[in-house]
Amino acid sequence: MPSTTRQVILKRRPVGEPKETDFEIVERPRPAPADGQVLCRTVWLSLDPYMRGRMSEGPSYAAPVPLGGVMCGGTVSCVVESKSPALAAGDFVLGYDGWQEWAVADAAGLRKLDPAAAPLSYALGVLGMPGMTAYVALLTIGRPIEGETVVVSAAAGAVGSVAGQIAKIRGCRTVGVAGSDAKCEFVTKELGLDACINYKTQPVRRALKKACPAGIDVYVENVGGPVFEAVLYNLAQGARIPLVGLISQYNATEWPTGPSLLPILVKRATIQGMIVGDHMDRQADFRRDVGDWLREGRIKYRETVVEGLENAPRAFIGLFHGENIGKLLVKVGEEG
Amino acid sequence: MPSTTRQVILKRRPVGEPKETDFEIVERPRPAPADGQVLCRTVWLSLDPYMRGRMSEGPSYAAPVPLGGVMCGGTVSCVVESKSPALAAGDFVLGYDGWQEWAVADAAGLRKLDPAAAPLSYALGVLGMPGMTAYVALLTIGRPIEGETVVVSAAAGAVGSVAGQIAKIRGCRTVGVAGSDAKCEFVTKELGLDACINYKTQPVRRALKKACPAGIDVYVENVGGPVFEAVLYNLAQGARIPLVGLISQYNATEWPTGPSLLPILVKRATIQGMIVGDHMDRQADFRRDVGDWLREGRIKYRETVVEGLENAPRAFIGLFHGENIGKLLVKVGEEG
Repeated sequence: MPSTTRQVILKRRPVGEPKETDFEIVERPRPAPADGQVLCRTVWLSLDPYMRGRMSEGPSYAAPVPLGGVMCGGTVSCVVESKSPALAAGDFVLGYDGWQEWAVADAAGLRKLDPAAAPLSYALGVLGMPGMTAYVALLTIGRPIEGETVVVSAAAGAVGSVAGQIAKIRGCRTVGVAGSDAKCEFVTKELGLDACINYKTQPVRRALKKACPAGIDVYVENVGGPVFEAVLYNLAQGARIPLVGLISQYNATEWPTGPSLLPILVKRATIQGMIVGDHMDRQADFRRDVGDWLREGRIKYRETVVEGLENAPRAFIGLFHGENIGKLLVKVGEEG
Repeated sequence: MPSTTRQVILKRRPVGEPKETDFEIVERPRPAPADGQVLCRTVWLSLDPYMRGRMSEGPSYAAPVPLGGVMCGGTVSCVVESKSPALAAGDFVLGYDGWQEWAVADAAGLRKLDPAAAPLSYALGVLGMPGMTAYVALLTIGRPIEGETVVVSAAAGAVGSVAGQIAKIRGCRTVGVAGSDAKCEFVTKELGLDACINYKTQPVRRALKKACPAGIDVYVENVGGPVFEAVLYNLAQGARIPLVGLISQYNATEWPTGPSLLPILVKRATIQGMIVGDHMDRQADFRRDVGDWLREGRIKYRETVVEGLENAPRAFIGLFHGENIGKLLVKVGEEG
C-alpha cells in the first residue's frame, strides 16, 4: 500500500472554459481511517458537467470546491481498511471521494455495491445519478404518454441516452439531438431511437419539424442554446420541458441570453428545473425499473473510459466539446 | 337608428409597433339580424395587448384578423333589435363584436349582463377576461401560500392590478413592478401592495433583492425582457412563474432573445404558459370570488377610458408605451 495518494486539486477558478492549468496534480500523504471510517482505493471516478458549477464561486445548489481543495466527484472504490462493522476490506462502495486515488470516508455515507449484480461502474452512470436524472426528468416531470413525441438533447450522453431509451420503452416517438454523425448513428442504431439530428450539420428547427410532425410533447433539456430555441418553435400544445442541464452555458463569462419564451406562452408549455437530489423518493422505483430494463436488454449502455487520474482534467474539458459517447469515467485503479 | 356603422379595419399588417396608418376607419351599411341573431350597439370596447398577435400572420393560439377585416375585440353592447327569444331590446350583453359601432351577433354567443350587479364595463376587465387571467394565473398556476412572496409585473395594468390584490388577499408579501412613479404610487397606495419598483428608474435586480429578501416564490409574468431577467436572479427555491403575457416582445421584428434559464434549473423553478380560455372550468369560482372581493372593497379597480371608436388605434398603440393605468377601454357609445 503506497504511503501517498495522488489528488487533482482546483488550482484556480476557471474563467470561461476550464483549462488544464486550472487543475494541479499533487501527491499527499495517504490518510488513515478513524473509527466509523474506511480507507478506500478509487477504482472509478465519474466526470459530469455539473462539476463546472462547483469550480465557480457564486450561488448554485451546492457549495463550490475551495481553491486548493480536491475536485469533487462520485466514485466507486474498493475498501482496503475498515474501522466500521458495516464494511469489510474487499467491499466495493459507491461514494463521493472526488478526484483522488485514495480517500478516507465515513462508512455511513457509502453504499455497498454487489459486483455480481451489474458492472461496478454502472453505479456512476445508468444505475446512478445520471440514470436517475433521466428517469425522474422523463417520468416525473415530463410524464409522456404512449404515442406522444419526446425529444432528447445530448442524446448520446449519460443522461440523454437513458432518457431516450425510457421514452421508447414507454411507447413514444423519440427523437435525439447530438453533435456528430457517429453519435447519431449510435442513437438510432444502438439505442433504437426513431431519429437523431446532428445539430452541427443540420438546420435543427426544420429537421425537428420534419422528425416531429405532430410537435414535441416532452423535451428533456440538457444543453440550452440554439437547440433549445429550435425545440421551442416545434412544441406541441401543453408540452413539458424538464430542465436538467444547460451545458452550453456553463462556461459563459457573461450572463448568457436564452430563447424567447413566446412559444411557452402560446403552447401553454411548462419548463421545470430539476435537481435529482430532490427526488430521492423515486430511487427505489428507479433502481427496480432501470435494473430490470438493463437485464432485459431494453436499455443499452455505453461508457467512455479514460485511464489514469492524471487524465481527468483533460477528459473533463472534453465534456464541453462533446468528445465522449455515453457516460464519461476515469479508471483510477483496477477493480481486482 | 343610423343606416351605417363605423368600423376600424386592419389595413396592413404592422411591422414592429403598430402605426395608426395600419388601421382604417370605414363606414359601411349597418347589418341586419337573421333568426337567432341580435343587432347590437357597441357601448364598451376592450383594448388588450393580445390583439397585437391577431394583427400578424403566423402561428399563434388564434387565427389572425384578415386584411380588410374588422379588428377583433371584446365588447359590451346594448341589444337594439332581437330575433332571438333569449334576448330583448334594451338588454346589455358581453360579446366579441370587435372595433365597430354596430354589429350583428348570434344570441347564443352572448352573455347577458345585469347592470345593477356591477358597472357594465367591469365585464371586460376585473370581472372579465383580464381579471380571470389574473385569478387563474395566480391561484391555479402560481399557487402561493400565505407568507410567500409574490411579484407582479405590469402591476398597474388590467391583469397585474388584479393579480397583486389577490396575492395580498391570500396573505402574501406582494411587490409590483411598473413603469412610472405615478403607477407605483397607485400600486402601493391604492391597491395596497407592499412595494412597487419603477423599472424605468430603478436597478430592478437590486431593488427586487431588497424588496424580496426571502426570494420570489411566485412571479406573474406579463411583460418579458429585462424585468423577467431581474426576477429570475431573485427566485426562491421551487418558484412558480405563470407566464400570461410578454408584451415587451409583441412588436419584435426578429425573434427576440430571452433570459438565460440557468436560475430556473438551479432554483428548481417552473415556468408555465397559460391562456385563460383553457381554464373556463374556473369561471364560476372566479366570478364568485372576485365579485365578492369587489363588493367588500378588498379589490380596487381602475379604468382608463378613451372616448370614441376613432381613437381606438391610437389608444391601442399607447398600450405598448404603458400609457394607461388599469384597464384600457374605448367608450364607443352611451350606456343609456
